[in-house]
Amino acid sequence: MSHPVTACVLIIGNEILSGRTKDVNLNHLAVTLGGWGVRITEARVIPDIEEVIVNAVNETRQQFDYVFTTGGIGPTHDDITAQCIATAFGVQLVQSEAIAERIRQRPAPDDVMANRLLMARVPEGAELIDNPTGGPQGFAIENVYVMAGIPMVMQAMLSSLDGKLKTGPIVKSRSIRAFLGESQIAGPLGAIQNQHPDLDIGSYPFYRDDRYGTVLVVRGTEDADIEKAAGAIMDAVVARGETPEDLGSNA
Amino acid sequence: MSHPVTACVLIIGNEILSGRTKDVNLNHLAVTLGGWGVRITEARVIPDIEEVIVNAVNETRQQFDYVFTTGGIGPTHDDITAQCIATAFGVQLVQSEAIAERIRQRPAPDDVMANRLLMARVPEGAELIDNPTGGPQGFAIENVYVMAGIPMVMQAMLSSLDGKLKTGPIVKSRSIRAFLGESQIAGPLGAIQNQHPDLDIGSYPFYRDDRYGTVLVVRGTEDADIEKAAGAIMDAVVARGETPEDLGSNA
Repeated sequence: MSHPVTACVLIIGNEILSGRTKDVNLNHLAVTLGGWGVRITEARVIPDIEEVIVNAVNETRQQFDYVFTTGGIGPTHDDITAQCIATAFGVQLVQSEAIAERIRQRPAPDDVMANRLLMARVPEGAELIDNPTGGPQGFAIENVYVMAGIPMVMQAMLSSLDGKLKTGPIVKSRSIRAFLGESQIAGPLGAIQNQHPDLDIGSYPFYRDDRYGTVLVVRGTEDADIEKAAGAIMDAVVARGETPEDLGSNA
Repeated sequence: MSHPVTACVLIIGNEILSGRTKDVNLNHLAVTLGGWGVRITEARVIPDIEEVIVNAVNETRQQFDYVFTTGGIGPTHDDITAQCIATAFGVQLVQSEAIAERIRQRPAPDDVMANRLLMARVPEGAELIDNPTGGPQGFAIENVYVMAGIPMVMQAMLSSLDGKLKTGPIVKSRSIRAFLGESQIAGPLGAIQNQHPDLDIGSYPFYRDDRYGTVLVVRGTEDADIEKAAGAIMDAVVARGETPEDLGSNA
């Protein structure tokens, strides 16, 4: 069996930490990368501060197979991600002629163009990540992938990486809903988890229509294991006098 | 002037990293704590793995004034946060009689009650965080505050901390919207940032109704500084031939 491929996401931006902006990129990255066989095993939200970004990049690129960053690659003074990545790798920040060429296709006064060309700066040796929206490309250096923070642009850049990343086994899931409190199912659920150490069994309570309920989620890479554990969970729900609802895969 | 009070948020849960669940707690914490004068300066999303949680707690509780955790304090096998916090602090996990008493108020069969009582375990020496929903309380040990992952419960627990935390200057903001691309305003904006080193000026592009626009946000603790920078930004927008829209404070 191939090894899991792991990733850390660095969400760069004061606006997320201040509460001005709600991040939506992590969820999209989790679902998309997960579907390709790249597992996000950590994410960090960090401010637009050079030292913090450089340290986070250098710490995480050693620990994970991939690091994906979002945010901070626009043309304003607070867009410092490209410079920080260059610093983290100890290389120069250089102008990518391919990005500059794309930027110059849309005319602008000289001073505006000078600012737009800031988006063409990449660490020396970086490869480009295509941007199907037509805007400036992102870039990758070694295992660090640098993308825009605007969700539409980030999603477009990510889509261009389909088939280009090293991947591992894909984690699949199966979800079962029961109108039982977590404590009512906790005992049998723990026993089922113990019987299936290769699976990850989670329990997520909810409250709806004046009733407590729990969604029980089995995650793993082997369909047969997942089926077996899901069956045992459904039996346990029945044994508690409730009717399990099979929500199917990846619910 | 009083010093800033900083916080790190640890969002604990495989379900966020797998993409099953979209985190909404960070934004609520950012807005609420920010309004009290506690600044979130980092957040991490980490899996339900003991070593990862213990290391993250021990690393961040040294670096930030406060650490707030969400998730992993329910009654099932994957709820390991309380144990991890005890391990991080090198203390025993003990039963809180106050939490146990609250749990016992709602009757249940013995085996279910045994599982519910798992939610009464806290690190020795911890203080409780009230839970106005009536469910089991959270807890705090030194500067680490441990809360539920369910947003309604987390919000209730957080509300009970109002007035009980050490706070610093409150960061206020003022936002101005302009139908200008970021590059068109980047030059003057950088100059205004340089003139106001104590402020944090951000620029957030958007695309709506077939037009590019940018929201320019000034953040700081001193109203007069904020006003001055906001005025300069509005002048810069006018100089570019556009009409600035004042979105007011905390927009």
